[in-house]
Amino acid sequence: MDILSEKEKIKEQLRPFFEPKSIAVIGASHKEGSPGNVIFYNLMMNYRSGKLKARVYGVNIKGGELFGEKLYKTILDIPDDVEHAIIVIPAKFTPSIMKECGEKGVKVATIISGGFSEVGNVELEKQVLEIAREYGIRIIGPNGLGIFDAYSGVDTLFIPEKKETDEGLKINMPRPRAGYITFLSQSGALGDAVLDYMYGENLGISKFISWGNKIDVDESEMLLYLMDDETTRVVMMYLEGLKKGGKKLVEIGREFSKRKPIVVLKGGVTEAGARATMSHTASLAGNYRIYETAFKEMGAIVAKNLLELLDMAKALALQPPAKGRNVGVVTNGGGPGILVSDFAERAGLRVPRLSSQTVEELKKYVSEGVIPSIATFPNPIDLSGSATDESYVVATQLLLEDPNIDIVVVLALHHPPTISKDMPRKMINVIKDYQKPTLVIDVGSAEVSVWVRKKFDDAGIPAYPLPERAIFGAKALVKYGEWLRKQGVLEQYLQEWHPAI
Amino acid sequence: MDILSEKEKIKEQLRPFFEPKSIAVIGASHKEGSPGNVIFYNLMMNYRSGKLKARVYGVNIKGGELFGEKLYKTILDIPDDVEHAIIVIPAKFTPSIMKECGEKGVKVATIISGGFSEVGNVELEKQVLEIAREYGIRIIGPNGLGIFDAYSGVDTLFIPEKKETDEGLKINMPRPRAGYITFLSQSGALGDAVLDYMYGENLGISKFISWGNKIDVDESEMLLYLMDDETTRVVMMYLEGLKKGGKKLVEIGREFSKRKPIVVLKGGVTEAGARATMSHTASLAGNYRIYETAFKEMGAIVAKNLLELLDMAKALALQPPAKGRNVGVVTNGGGPGILVSDFAERAGLRVPRLSSQTVEELKKYVSEGVIPSIATFPNPIDLSGSATDESYVVATQLLLEDPNIDIVVVLALHHPPTISKDMPRKMINVIKDYQKPTLVIDVGSAEVSVWVRKKFDDAGIPAYPLPERAIFGAKALVKYGEWLRKQGVLEQYLQEWHPAI
Repeated sequence: MDILSEKEKIKEQLRPFFEPKSIAVIGASHKEGSPGNVIFYNLMMNYRSGKLKARVYGVNIKGGELFGEKLYKTILDIPDDVEHAIIVIPAKFTPSIMKECGEKGVKVATIISGGFSEVGNVELEKQVLEIAREYGIRIIGPNGLGIFDAYSGVDTLFIPEKKETDEGLKINMPRPRAGYITFLSQSGALGDAVLDYMYGENLGISKFISWGNKIDVDESEMLLYLMDDETTRVVMMYLEGLKKGGKKLVEIGREFSKRKPIVVLKGGVTEAGARATMSHTASLAGNYRIYETAFKEMGAIVAKNLLELLDMAKALALQPPAKGRNVGVVTNGGGPGILVSDFAERAGLRVPRLSSQTVEELKKYVSEGVIPSIATFPNPIDLSGSATDESYVVATQLLLEDPNIDIVVVLALHHPPTISKDMPRKMINVIKDYQKPTLVIDVGSAEVSVWVRKKFDDAGIPAYPLPERAIFGAKALVKYGEWLRKQGVLEQYLQEWHPAI
Repeated sequence: MDILSEKEKIKEQLRPFFEPKSIAVIGASHKEGSPGNVIFYNLMMNYRSGKLKARVYGVNIKGGELFGEKLYKTILDIPDDVEHAIIVIPAKFTPSIMKECGEKGVKVATIISGGFSEVGNVELEKQVLEIAREYGIRIIGPNGLGIFDAYSGVDTLFIPEKKETDEGLKINMPRPRAGYITFLSQSGALGDAVLDYMYGENLGISKFISWGNKIDVDESEMLLYLMDDETTRVVMMYLEGLKKGGKKLVEIGREFSKRKPIVVLKGGVTEAGARATMSHTASLAGNYRIYETAFKEMGAIVAKNLLELLDMAKALALQPPAKGRNVGVVTNGGGPGILVSDFAERAGLRVPRLSSQTVEELKKYVSEGVIPSIATFPNPIDLSGSATDESYVVATQLLLEDPNIDIVVVLALHHPPTISKDMPRKMINVIKDYQKPTLVIDVGSAEVSVWVRKKFDDAGIPAYPLPERAIFGAKALVKYGEWLRKQGVLEQYLQEWHPAI
């Protein structure tokens, strides 16, 4: 089957994971804080608030009631079709439960339960898969965190939302806001942790999938599903290793990357790391070179750590790929501007001298008093600490117009009194008129700094609290643009590209 | 003069910058938000609250009153000695003001005013320096942000503390909490921005000095001053370039580094960056190799970006240098543990297999049910998501005891319900009994995550929100240990080392 017809089949098969008409939580538990309890509660609340469209049913062998809802003794007792079964029961009971799911006509199952191949129960896992195949049920898991979909309200994250501290109950497992990053993780613990981190960084998520033992649905199929998913604009992957399907992943990944970027962090790239992956997911992390080649072939951008992964994903989710490596920088702080130049050049980008035409225009603005007279233009355009909102607007516009500049980095330190609260709004208005990749830096972490960055982020212009982090984003836009150009699709891609926000 | 006698002289000369008996703000201004207004207000508030011991006087040629205080028409009218003059008047008036300061017996002057050599007024700057030399006044500046001392309350940061946003007045220029990092910056804008960033990262500061044009007091003299400064446990430098005094800096830096670590970020290390330093501080950023050699000779640890600079400074401020490169990792998340291993090995550290003795001890704890049976020990010790506070305590203690482990990295994800609010306290109690460098990671940014990290930070155990960032810290401790060993002073250093908190 060719990739595009397979895609249509997979879209149909996997849809109920994310947009089910109905859900059954098998193992809905009375024990507060237990996975079956947390999952049933979260889904029920999402249903009641109207966020989740699917009707949610609880199944517990003992029956009874939970959160004001009847619990069914088996899935077969539910007086309604069930599309998506979420299974949170001891591993040994899963085969019989899967059979019942099959008889009920369940289409997909997210198996949260652990106790399978990861602790040596290989046969049990095989049995579950065989039953699934027999009934045509697709599986995510077992032994993972499952799924979080910020749009549809499907949410199997079983970590309690709040937790006791010395200062009372506090948010323990936050959900990031809805956005455009889909995160596929071969580690549940890393998944939790990264979602928690994304929350505070104001990073938006579309979907999160924690693979667990990954006995059925895998990265390749998920990429097929996500290819047409409107709220997925970048796929962020944490990958330890593949037991099989590497060739298929490269093939599908290459098609995927022609439509949307993939950014990947590989775990187990050193000897010590690889040793740990054997203990963790029994993955043969293998020779990193092989993975590197595969990533390159499929157009995936490789991040060297979590910060880079997230900063790259942020840029790729919001901005178009770059046509070239030339960065234009505007700043009101000399030192930070120098650092942007250093970091950009060290990352393989270029911070070229500005064209004489741009310099002439800048001088004109100086003579008109729009740009301070002490400003300098070596690229960075250093507007000086006396820069006003207007200085920023005109200088940024010149960089956006300059055909020699491929990416614009606006370093807008909010501190000086000459920068007003209207700066973000005025800048957004200008930047939105161009489809040239643009990234913003405002260094700091206090209230105004957070507010400024959020203004830009919310307008689809990625903003970062440190210069190096914007350069991680810029580098990703450059690399993705270069890969698209090599495939001969960059021009078409840019023509079809449109802002998410 | 040898370095140690010079140090005593310099300590006497520079003391009034940080611990003056009295301060005059020359140019205390009625104009709200102007530098002379903000500085006078902040110092006055610090004096009134009792934080600043120095009596604060305002000087304004027009006289009058400000914030309920009389303004003197000249410094000579102040009926008290003045040790520290803070000068915030137009550049052209500074020579005559400096003369008056001299006649008044002022010992040090922080010149905030710009308009000197940075805009071509080289002669004016020379004149100011000549007058200072004549009267024995030491100068910081001109054209800088001046000084912030978190302990004494001296504070010349003239950026308004609050600023209007769409959501009302918000914190614009926060002050980080008091701590052990002293930051010397050759860029005022970078200074502001980094202080703002440190605030949100819960990083503690001792002193901040923004050099401006640096016509008198320089890095070498400041290092001499800071050598015996109890609240400075690490010096963090942003340096664009030196016009002179390189040899002296290396000589004094080497002596300094035998007592306390220096971590440095150099601006202008690429061609584009160097071009920008010419425009900014007219620094000959020069061949980076020359600086690299100098940093190496003086024992300064080189950071490659701001994040690394700050993460390194955090570790160096709180933990002892490492005796070797062997890292022991304990985690309750497989994926994050793998990443710690990868990042450590890529940074040149080692994550060795654990000794058979340590593995035996771990197995004993498994058999006793203290460590979950699914735990694995390839180093990382992966306690699994079922780890309890007690699992962490015993595993961490084994790493602290293991003579083959030089640094302990505790990756403690707070999310699972088996980790209680007592985990940080219990862990701190164990870690404090050893003087082995220990760093903590809890990935996330929501409330519990921030709370957990603060608990560790406040106990002097640096905690980081991402694995790679703890490794930046660990790398700095290893590099500093290696340098001390080369100087033959590591053992003595470690004997004398004591925790700050």
